[in-house]
Amino acid sequence: MGNKDIKKDIKGQGPTRRDLLSGSARLATLAGAGSLAGIGGATLMSEESQAAAQGMGMVAPGELDEYYGFWSSGQSGEMRIIGLPSMRELMRVPVFNRCSATGWGHTNESRHIMTEAMLPETKKFLESEGGVYHNGDLHHPHMSFTDGTYDGRYLFMNDKANTRVARVRVDIMKCDKMVEIPNASDIHGLRPQKYPRTGYVFANGEHRVPIPNDGSILDEPEKYHAIFTAVDGDTMKVAWQVMVDGNLDNCDADYQGLYAISTCYNSEEAVNLAGMMSSEQDWAVVFDIKRIEAGVEKGDFETINGVPVLDGRKGSPYTRYIPVSNSPHGCNTAPDGIHIVIAGKLSPTVTVLDVRRLPDLFNDKIGPRDVVVAEPELGLGPLHTAYDGKGMAYTTLFLDSQVVKWDMQKAIDAYAGKDVDPILDKVDVQYQPGHNHSSMGETKEADGKWLVSLNKFSKDRFINVGPLKPENEQLIDITGDKMEVVHDGPTFAEPHDCIIVRADIVNPRSVWPADDPMWAETAAQAKKDGVELGKDSKLIRDGNKVRVYMWSAAPTFSMEKFTVKQGDEVTLIISNMDKVDDLTHGITVANHGVAFEVGPMATASMTFNANRPGVHWFYCQWFCHALHMEMRGRMLVEPA
Amino acid sequence: MGNKDIKKDIKGQGPTRRDLLSGSARLATLAGAGSLAGIGGATLMSEESQAAAQGMGMVAPGELDEYYGFWSSGQSGEMRIIGLPSMRELMRVPVFNRCSATGWGHTNESRHIMTEAMLPETKKFLESEGGVYHNGDLHHPHMSFTDGTYDGRYLFMNDKANTRVARVRVDIMKCDKMVEIPNASDIHGLRPQKYPRTGYVFANGEHRVPIPNDGSILDEPEKYHAIFTAVDGDTMKVAWQVMVDGNLDNCDADYQGLYAISTCYNSEEAVNLAGMMSSEQDWAVVFDIKRIEAGVEKGDFETINGVPVLDGRKGSPYTRYIPVSNSPHGCNTAPDGIHIVIAGKLSPTVTVLDVRRLPDLFNDKIGPRDVVVAEPELGLGPLHTAYDGKGMAYTTLFLDSQVVKWDMQKAIDAYAGKDVDPILDKVDVQYQPGHNHSSMGETKEADGKWLVSLNKFSKDRFINVGPLKPENEQLIDITGDKMEVVHDGPTFAEPHDCIIVRADIVNPRSVWPADDPMWAETAAQAKKDGVELGKDSKLIRDGNKVRVYMWSAAPTFSMEKFTVKQGDEVTLIISNMDKVDDLTHGITVANHGVAFEVGPMATASMTFNANRPGVHWFYCQWFCHALHMEMRGRMLVEPA
Repeated sequence: MGNKDIKKDIKGQGPTRRDLLSGSARLATLAGAGSLAGIGGATLMSEESQAAAQGMGMVAPGELDEYYGFWSSGQSGEMRIIGLPSMRELMRVPVFNRCSATGWGHTNESRHIMTEAMLPETKKFLESEGGVYHNGDLHHPHMSFTDGTYDGRYLFMNDKANTRVARVRVDIMKCDKMVEIPNASDIHGLRPQKYPRTGYVFANGEHRVPIPNDGSILDEPEKYHAIFTAVDGDTMKVAWQVMVDGNLDNCDADYQGLYAISTCYNSEEAVNLAGMMSSEQDWAVVFDIKRIEAGVEKGDFETINGVPVLDGRKGSPYTRYIPVSNSPHGCNTAPDGIHIVIAGKLSPTVTVLDVRRLPDLFNDKIGPRDVVVAEPELGLGPLHTAYDGKGMAYTTLFLDSQVVKWDMQKAIDAYAGKDVDPILDKVDVQYQPGHNHSSMGETKEADGKWLVSLNKFSKDRFINVGPLKPENEQLIDITGDKMEVVHDGPTFAEPHDCIIVRADIVNPRSVWPADDPMWAETAAQAKKDGVELGKDSKLIRDGNKVRVYMWSAAPTFSMEKFTVKQGDEVTLIISNMDKVDDLTHGITVANHGVAFEVGPMATASMTFNANRPGVHWFYCQWFCHALHMEMRGRMLVEPA
Repeated sequence: MGNKDIKKDIKGQGPTRRDLLSGSARLATLAGAGSLAGIGGATLMSEESQAAAQGMGMVAPGELDEYYGFWSSGQSGEMRIIGLPSMRELMRVPVFNRCSATGWGHTNESRHIMTEAMLPETKKFLESEGGVYHNGDLHHPHMSFTDGTYDGRYLFMNDKANTRVARVRVDIMKCDKMVEIPNASDIHGLRPQKYPRTGYVFANGEHRVPIPNDGSILDEPEKYHAIFTAVDGDTMKVAWQVMVDGNLDNCDADYQGLYAISTCYNSEEAVNLAGMMSSEQDWAVVFDIKRIEAGVEKGDFETINGVPVLDGRKGSPYTRYIPVSNSPHGCNTAPDGIHIVIAGKLSPTVTVLDVRRLPDLFNDKIGPRDVVVAEPELGLGPLHTAYDGKGMAYTTLFLDSQVVKWDMQKAIDAYAGKDVDPILDKVDVQYQPGHNHSSMGETKEADGKWLVSLNKFSKDRFINVGPLKPENEQLIDITGDKMEVVHDGPTFAEPHDCIIVRADIVNPRSVWPADDPMWAETAAQAKKDGVELGKDSKLIRDGNKVRVYMWSAAPTFSMEKFTVKQGDEVTLIISNMDKVDDLTHGITVANHGVAFEVGPMATASMTFNANRPGVHWFYCQWFCHALHMEMRGRMLVEPA
């Protein structure tokens, strides 16, 4: 049924909700022509129409989003950039995965980044597996902070699958550093230091393993440990580690630069589900950053695999274990700078801590539970909490498939004995929400406009695409008293977590600096070879190693052909001399598994074995020009 | 500025278009509560509001899309499923790429599919490259036809990078067959036979290479050839090939099952841009399917690399070369069953052919240009043409950044000398459109509702995400006289082409058949090992080869731990016994590059080297249950 038919139907028969929502609109064009806006002298658009215009999170064609969303992708291993409120995916940034389009994981430059801070035993393990991991499990992307709010420098993110932390440069939106974390197993929760700046990136090693994990200890779980790591966000080197009891889950930092805190489950230190569930109580572990720094200073650590490891198990001066209900999960510092909410997961409660009491706790003036200032019962399966900067908190309820809005002060008052109900509103989400996040919600500039609920199941919300279903991220308007779901967004595995950043904070470049450190090694080799990148077109032979230096300018490569010998190891180096916004080139060598992106003024390279004699075409695969399809040349491989 | 503020502003100051379009809507919730719909007795939604409700291609939360879009992804190598008109990405289907999330390219099952029909020399080449290509360049996804319209069985698609054709099963939305095309180089245009059914999948080898391409001919371009291939869509084996003059670009089939046709450029047979552009004329090549089948029958071919290759160069009985302007590009059969439009690309014209004249052409009763019935001048850079089933055609103009709507009959009348202008409307798109596609537009059921313009550049249309910009696919409402752009959709490289299929045609399953052929090899091995998949949990040792059979049922794997020896080659086989919609599990073995998807009732496996002694956790990475995070176990690797 066409839209016009629907409108007719509506007039004739009276509409149902479905009818109302399945017509196609003329709005954008009409508004463009001025008629709805009243500019052209026609009808002024009704209030409902205005609302509907950006209804459900829409942004009209040509209009710009107001926020950047930086999204994890779970087991997809990439970072995604989403525009809000439109919820449109603006870019994929490959990080822990390999990428067919950009060549990430295959170019020499990306492989340098992926291997630079890789542990020696991993390098050895990967020798037979292509040298770099092909997968990752990216859960938590977070931006660098200065003075309690985002500063637009970097994004940091974890890899649970292969125990790594990576950094993305915001100026060019590419991963520039990746560090494998020694001693820990499987980095889960990750958050940057908020104050005075990042500074540290705190990373939870979730799984308990022997340290060192070299096979000398196997089935003796009592000898396993979990590791909390502080990575230096500037150098991307491990600053220090703390060994803890239990398994570390999520974490956050305070607004004072004094403490980090992690949820910590499996106080039983069991290795199976029944064992891990047996106790009714687990912990929130608090790390005293100043004491730890002093401990490192005075040498109170063991150096294991090259990094200082402090003992933070129960009784240590570096940590405090605050008892909370069994298997706590989310850990979120409020923009008030005072409160941290620990989500109960298996308990219907969240536990609110007051960071102002932590000095007394560390000085043994009060007991661990004295830090608790509220413990409201919110619903079933509380997982994560977001904030609006106005004292309200929004917690996902996994089992109830809801988001609950609650008043932190009322929860504190209730805990103090006052007869108040902190719960203000509940909204159904579809279905089983995990993380949520509000606009600027983890900074002191939380603005209370949008909330995203990242739901693990979509069930009936989208047309069926086979056994593998999309998940569902829903956009919720939190400007009113009642929360309102305004957009359903299907996503491929897995929208694990996200942050929502005001657009003015994010200012990437459009053209690369021609001397960017990303290709420093390639540039150094070019210099040795007497080649000026972007100017010379040269084939350098060095035994059976051949380096082919070319540049690109739409719609041509600087070489129409080059000749190598069967058995040569060929490195293809392309410098893109198009200094124009959006003029990315690529090069694909057909039937050789060679394909990579070369951004405006960037240089990139890939090495492969030329062991197929014959004529092989290379071509530009990143659309560049009316004669893009003709942008190509030949690699002639002489038989051995 | 919040939404409510904007509304206030609008009332106070009179709105601008930007104001009108940047507020957030209450529509979904209000409609849900019945108020807008008039059900709750409140205001009936105005017609503008109704229109705006699905304005700009929106589909309200919980409402379903009416069409499936099957999208290529160019150099990303995957197929994408988009819902229309919402333009939301519903699923990624890895095909020519490797996938961190699903394990595609790494699981034994996917590697079997990727290598089953790989050429021997490619297998040899890839030995040192991990055994399968990691990249692809997927340009043209098309559905199988029966009697001139989509039949919901399969989707077919090309890989330009590594000369392959793949098939996706619509029932489970996974790639089940991939064939490397011998003799050809770099498959570009691809279309299925429309009548009586698919049948053949026609695939253009774009680049001219020596045949065989073994290094005996190198820099002798006059000895290069391009190859047109018919793949059997049922068996996915090459049926036959035809050697042609020039380079093949795009192709299409008729509605009679008699002819296929390809645009063919570089009649100069040059190897550089200047040479390829030198002549003012190239061709549309027509292939006579019945004659070719008869030729194969009577043995009029040379067998090269195991397939019959017919000589279809100029003068051959199997082909006709219809002169058209230099470098034609798009080739689109109209739903009227009669006309084929060849887009001029470097000429501002398109050339309209009448398929009813093709028999006379092949019987030499008329000349090649006698097949031409119209050649309207439409604008600069005509690339591809879509149809509404009502006689109107919609052609993308790359250089003009427009879509032009024109009347085919008027173009024919004008060519016959009548003084009529076939151009009805032009709409600006943003920017540089390549392919376009209309709803059901390449079938006899073209319905004239939606048109998608796949634009190569987005420039100023989205907030800046760094040097690499998204492209822009725009949704255009074509139900009215004037085309209306209603949605801007940013996409990662590269929305090269798409089809738009009515939802009732696509009926995938939600749970896998437990005996699906996808894991037939794994099931056969299990049988040999005396293991019942999904029931037994067993470790089978066979020298240093170890097979670990497990099943999963949320939130546990059937083995809590298993022990192998350093140096073992371990194959992990998981059968997911959760027979529930959307209950996909996965397994990740930490720090081993092992991660794959296991759908409901599916079996999947991956092989890796267990050469890291120690304790390694495996866990479920596909969200499944409230205790998903606890769904894990240990692999103990004993030191050698």
